[in-house]
Amino acid sequence: LTPVLIGVDWGTSAFRAYLLAATGAIIARHESHRGILAVANGAFEAVLEEAVAAWRAAHPKLPVIMSGMIGSRQGWIEAPYVPCPASAKDLSLKLIRVPARRLTDAHIIPGVAIEDERGVPDVMRGEETQIAGALALQNATDGVFVLPGSHAKWVTVNGSAIRLFRTYMTGEVFQALKQHTILGRLMTDEPGTGQGFAEGVRRARGEDATPGRLLNLLFSARTLGLFSKLPASEISDYLSGLLIGAELIDALDSARPFTIIANPELSARYLTAAQVIGLKCQRAPEDCVVHGHVALARAAGLIEVEA
Amino acid sequence: LTPVLIGVDWGTSAFRAYLLAATGAIIARHESHRGILAVANGAFEAVLEEAVAAWRAAHPKLPVIMSGMIGSRQGWIEAPYVPCPASAKDLSLKLIRVPARRLTDAHIIPGVAIEDERGVPDVMRGEETQIAGALALQNATDGVFVLPGSHAKWVTVNGSAIRLFRTYMTGEVFQALKQHTILGRLMTDEPGTGQGFAEGVRRARGEDATPGRLLNLLFSARTLGLFSKLPASEISDYLSGLLIGAELIDALDSARPFTIIANPELSARYLTAAQVIGLKCQRAPEDCVVHGHVALARAAGLIEVEA
Repeated sequence: LTPVLIGVDWGTSAFRAYLLAATGAIIARHESHRGILAVANGAFEAVLEEAVAAWRAAHPKLPVIMSGMIGSRQGWIEAPYVPCPASAKDLSLKLIRVPARRLTDAHIIPGVAIEDERGVPDVMRGEETQIAGALALQNATDGVFVLPGSHAKWVTVNGSAIRLFRTYMTGEVFQALKQHTILGRLMTDEPGTGQGFAEGVRRARGEDATPGRLLNLLFSARTLGLFSKLPASEISDYLSGLLIGAELIDALDSARPFTIIANPELSARYLTAAQVIGLKCQRAPEDCVVHGHVALARAAGLIEVEA
Repeated sequence: LTPVLIGVDWGTSAFRAYLLAATGAIIARHESHRGILAVANGAFEAVLEEAVAAWRAAHPKLPVIMSGMIGSRQGWIEAPYVPCPASAKDLSLKLIRVPARRLTDAHIIPGVAIEDERGVPDVMRGEETQIAGALALQNATDGVFVLPGSHAKWVTVNGSAIRLFRTYMTGEVFQALKQHTILGRLMTDEPGTGQGFAEGVRRARGEDATPGRLLNLLFSARTLGLFSKLPASEISDYLSGLLIGAELIDALDSARPFTIIANPELSARYLTAAQVIGLKCQRAPEDCVVHGHVALARAAGLIEVEA
C-alpha cells in the first residue's frame, strides 16, 4: 500500500493520526490523549510533528488533513463554518492551512453551520468529515445520519450535501442529571438487564407532548424508583433510554431509515432504541473519519484523483 | 386574636412554625434553617418543642399540624399519599399522628399521588396544603395552580379536589445545566435586562416539536453566545426563560387562567413568561400555607368550625 495522506482526527480529549492509502486503508496509526484541551501553550505543531515524524521522514511530501475541534476557537487556528448546503466540494474549498513553521502542508477541514428560520445557529465540527466518509463508503449521495455523543448530531444529506442538521445535548444532559440532580440518588451502578432502557424508550413516546414535557418525564426516573416499580440497577439505563428515545422520536420526522456513526457501545443503544420504537437503521463501518479525510483531501486536490 | 392552631411548614431546608388564629391570621412566627436534612438522629420532636415551647406554655391545648417533607421517608414519620381526586376532606381523614413522647397532639398532613395511564406515579408533599389555602382564600372550588421551584407542580382542581397534577423538574434541571454543562461556560453573573429571558420564552414555542426537542433547544444557549447573538450577561436568563416557557406551554393545555403560588422572585418570572406567551395568570397571596393549615385542621376537627 502506498501512503498518500496523513489524516488527523483531533478532538477535545483525543488525538488520532492515520497514515492512509488512496483507498482509505489505514497503513499505520498513532493515538494519544493529547486532545486540544491537553495541549499547553498552543504547542499544536510540536504534538503533530512528534506524532507524524517517522511517516514524514519516510514520505516527505505527504500532506496532512485534520478534522475536529482542532479547528475551533480553542484549537490551533479557527477554521470557518461552511453554511448549509455543504458538500465535500464546498468543504474542500474552505480548508485552512495551519500557521506552522515546518509542517506547512497541513490543513484543517472547516465546520458546518446552519441557521433556523428564527436566526438561531447550530454548528458541527468533525462530524462533517465522518459523514463525507460514510457517504464515500456507501457510495451514496443521500441519507439521514446520527452521530451520538455528548452533543448528538442528526444530519440530513441530499445530493451529496449536508442540507439540515440539529444538535441534541443528550449525552451531556444525561451526565449532568445523573451526577447532579436527585435522579442519581436512587441509582446503583450495577449493570442493567436492558429492561429499564427499553422502558425508558417507551416512556419517551407520548401524544400531545411538547418540549417542556421532557422536564416532567424525567421525574418518572425518581417516582418509579420511589414506588419500587423499577429496580435501582435499572434507573440509570431507564434515564438513558428516556433521553435517547425522546431524541430519536423528535429527530426523525418520518420512518426513514437512518445510519448510526458511533462506537459500538453507543451504536448498540441507538440500535436498541430504534428497535423498540420500530424504526429502521444501520451502523456505519468504523473509521468513517479516515474515509472522510481521503474524500476531502481528494476534493481539495491534495492527493491525486485515481483514474 | 385567639390562637387556635400551630401550623408548621417543614421542608427539606427550612422550618417555619406559625401561631394561628381561626381566620388564618399569623399571631407569631418562628423560622429557622432546621429543615429535615439539618436535623440529626431523627431529633424532630426536640426541634419542634423548642420552636413552639412558649406558645404551648401559654396555650397548652393547641394542636399542631405540619406539612411538607417532614412527612417523607426522610422525615419524622412517613405520611401516606392520598390518591387523586383528593379534597381537603380526603386529606384530613389521613392525617398521621407523630410518634412523640410529649407533643402527642401533633399531626402530619398526607401527600397526594397520581398514576398516569401507564402506571407511572407522580407525587406531591406540601403543595396540597398550599393549594387548600389558596382555595380557602379565594373561596374557590376550581382552578389551575402552578407551584414553581426545583420540582414545579402544575395542579388542576375541580369540585374542591385535586384531580390532576404533573411535576416538572425545571428548577433543578436549570441548576444542573448551568453549573455542570458547557452551557454555563459562556454565562456571566451580571444581572440580565429581561431581554434574554423573553427571548428564551419565545424560543420555547415551536411547532411539531416533541419532548426530545428540548435537548436541541438547550444548545441554542451555547450557539447564540458563540455567535455573539446574545450578550454573556443574558445567557443565564435565556436558559431560565427557555425552560420556564417550555414548562408553561406544555403544562397548560388551554388558555385557561392560572394562579401562581410562589415567592416574589419566582412569581415574577412566571408572570413575565405568561405575558410573553399571552397567557392569563394571577399571583396567590403569600402565606397560602397557613390558610391551608387552618382549612385542613378544621376539616379534621382539630379546631372548632366557626358558626
